[in-house]
Amino acid sequence: MKEFHKINLLFDFYGNLLTEKQQKFIELYYGDDLSLGEIAEQFGVTRQAVHDTLKRAEQTLANYEDKLGLMGKFNSNYKSLADVLMLLDDYRGGSNRDGLERARELLQSLLNTRQEL
Amino acid sequence: MKEFHKINLLFDFYGNLLTEKQQKFIELYYGDDLSLGEIAEQFGVTRQAVHDTLKRAEQTLANYEDKLGLMGKFNSNYKSLADVLMLLDDYRGGSNRDGLERARELLQSLLNTRQEL
Repeated sequence: MKEFHKINLLFDFYGNLLTEKQQKFIELYYGDDLSLGEIAEQFGVTRQAVHDTLKRAEQTLANYEDKLGLMGKFNSNYKSLADVLMLLDDYRGGSNRDGLERARELLQSLLNTRQEL
Repeated sequence: MKEFHKINLLFDFYGNLLTEKQQKFIELYYGDDLSLGEIAEQFGVTRQAVHDTLKRAEQTLANYEDKLGLMGKFNSNYKSLADVLMLLDDYRGGSNRDGLERARELLQSLLNTRQEL
């Protein structure tokens, strides 16, 4: 399941760089949870051909992330945003008096790192 | 200057997908502000060759953004983060009593749109 999730995320970022066939197979296999055999039947190709197309597509997605790292950066920013929200919640709930200041600092540092993305 | 800025931003996102030569020329022309003639001399090629390489590189960067739109999404998120910070500042300064709530809502909506990026 973890691998599924990772490939779906990579596909969200870089899917448009794949061929039409690769995109279709990834959507059916990872999105709609069809089996290799079901996709093969639907497209009139062998199960092995579907497997090979998927593997090539996955490799291509991974290569783009290796080169660009945009998904990794986005995920890291996402975690920081969740932290900001938690700090604001704690501040509002009265359990962290410094929460507002710390949330502001974290936001400011995120805005400052814009150059890096 | 606006065009310079845009190409620098695109280069930050997708530069690693260019050839080594394209990357080098973009860095020298847009980053270090060398002229076409200076780059041509340094690499022992014609001014026209430098111009053509730059144009092809710019087109490639623009094509990646057309297909992926990651820079646009990132810029939009960046603006929202700046808005969150402004709301918190207004709340802290006492000029917007709803600032904290509105900042939380905006953050929450950013976190919810994760699927879209």
